[in-house]
Amino acid sequence: MRAAARAPASVGNIGVGFDLLGHSIAGPADRVLVERCAQPGVEIRAIRGPGAERLPREPERNTAGAALLALRAALDLPFGFALEIDKGIPLASGLGGSAASAVAAVVAANALLPEPLPREALYPFALAGEEVASGGRHGDNVGPMLLGGVVLAGRERLVPLKVPAGLCCVVVHPRLELSTREARAVLKAPYAIADFVAQSERLALFLIGLERGDVALIRAGLADLLVEPRRAPLVPGFERVKGAALDHGALGASLSGAGPSVFAWFEHAALAEAALAAMREAFAEAGLDSEGWISPVAGPAAELLSCAA
Amino acid sequence: MRAAARAPASVGNIGVGFDLLGHSIAGPADRVLVERCAQPGVEIRAIRGPGAERLPREPERNTAGAALLALRAALDLPFGFALEIDKGIPLASGLGGSAASAVAAVVAANALLPEPLPREALYPFALAGEEVASGGRHGDNVGPMLLGGVVLAGRERLVPLKVPAGLCCVVVHPRLELSTREARAVLKAPYAIADFVAQSERLALFLIGLERGDVALIRAGLADLLVEPRRAPLVPGFERVKGAALDHGALGASLSGAGPSVFAWFEHAALAEAALAAMREAFAEAGLDSEGWISPVAGPAAELLSCAA
Repeated sequence: MRAAARAPASVGNIGVGFDLLGHSIAGPADRVLVERCAQPGVEIRAIRGPGAERLPREPERNTAGAALLALRAALDLPFGFALEIDKGIPLASGLGGSAASAVAAVVAANALLPEPLPREALYPFALAGEEVASGGRHGDNVGPMLLGGVVLAGRERLVPLKVPAGLCCVVVHPRLELSTREARAVLKAPYAIADFVAQSERLALFLIGLERGDVALIRAGLADLLVEPRRAPLVPGFERVKGAALDHGALGASLSGAGPSVFAWFEHAALAEAALAAMREAFAEAGLDSEGWISPVAGPAAELLSCAA
Repeated sequence: MRAAARAPASVGNIGVGFDLLGHSIAGPADRVLVERCAQPGVEIRAIRGPGAERLPREPERNTAGAALLALRAALDLPFGFALEIDKGIPLASGLGGSAASAVAAVVAANALLPEPLPREALYPFALAGEEVASGGRHGDNVGPMLLGGVVLAGRERLVPLKVPAGLCCVVVHPRLELSTREARAVLKAPYAIADFVAQSERLALFLIGLERGDVALIRAGLADLLVEPRRAPLVPGFERVKGAALDHGALGASLSGAGPSVFAWFEHAALAEAALAAMREAFAEAGLDSEGWISPVAGPAAELLSCAA
């Protein structure tokens, strides 16, 4: 028995919800083929795509492998899995590539279970996969990939959030790699309570804005005062790219996940089109080639592509 | 011309929203009588009630006086105000007493303006009053007193939040004074990013729960991981009192504002009745007399009591 699934890229943090909020995008995606095997354990047979040779093949060090090891252990499965991974999401781009491989793997493997689990129940296994890549147990990429759209990813639960109709997202990925571990290191120095209060206000305005479909509140909230100031210096041209998005009417813009990709939200696609060109131009001025996508903020969920006996 | 107004007590922070969230309660209240005077400036003619002799009479050091000085300055008023303040809210109780005097003063003075302002527009003046008492410009008491109910009080705006029908609050005030300044001092040592993520998740669950009327999310969110652990040691018996509330079905319980008062939220009044007795008993076991109130979470707004030429 074998099954294939794809998981979309995602915008982690969404600026205002570090390690908690994310949304999937219609853009690049990872694809994983899983075969159910008589012998126990998890084997990675192939990893393909740009940079594939740099990803670990040992299942316990690979995000897809670790996710399926966690699934096997939790369900005490009498069979094993063999994987083939096609990376479509650029490595170390801040677009959730490590999470996507884990999510695609669990969604495919789930279809091979005697009794497949509901999507939400796959969350802890995908998290276990994400953990081996980033060193932290945070679901801001995994959550939206599993459920689609904007998701609040807590330690124990996923809460899908409402998204006003028509809201769209520009994501620009400069050709520059930034490891999540490196980008997390700059966050270690401590914070004052006043930093929390200021950021919490933004988070609250953003969440209430989403739930009410109030774009003015989303705009008031969509800013990162806590993490972005520490990470922005790692991305050449960041301030210009963000400025280009805001000049083109963005509700807000920040780093996607740990960066270097930059995202911006817009009220409609026409604004986004013009902004995408300006944001890429700004990266070019900083000497960086880039690629970009426009997606609904309510992006797709991971999907099962095929399942055959 | 003279006008009188009353402002209710409030539960600041609501545990999960330090310096940002609060709700008014139907319980003790401050009352302020304001007279419009030909001579410019602000004069405090009387302060009455328990502890009144310890409150500053100089307008710029008194919360009600400072609020009216700010109002006069901003509107460039050609007349002055004379005040009489009746304190109904216990001093240094964590129930927003200093904010209530400021709010009652601006609500009364507003009625004496040639063109009274909408309630929200009084926010910066009430904040200026609060600032002289607590040393910080935070509106988590002032906001709900002005508008009633649960309010998100940002630097620049107030956002009233939805409250599920029937939700009620127990507040128990032990006979113990805790100055806001002292209670803020223990918060100065810095915080790790992980503390912020954990607390932000609670805040997000709480806000979404309120907006959706989802009591399970409110329960999941209504906990303070950031401030309560540092302040609880200042209040003898706190853990027992909180435990008594949770044992009686509270959705959550924490310090009201800077404490020492403790609040707890319940789904209905019958639970609250039993919890109030148990919470007071727990304070008694710690050697503290107490008084308590039960109020809708959607408490009242400040109100104008009279206005006469």
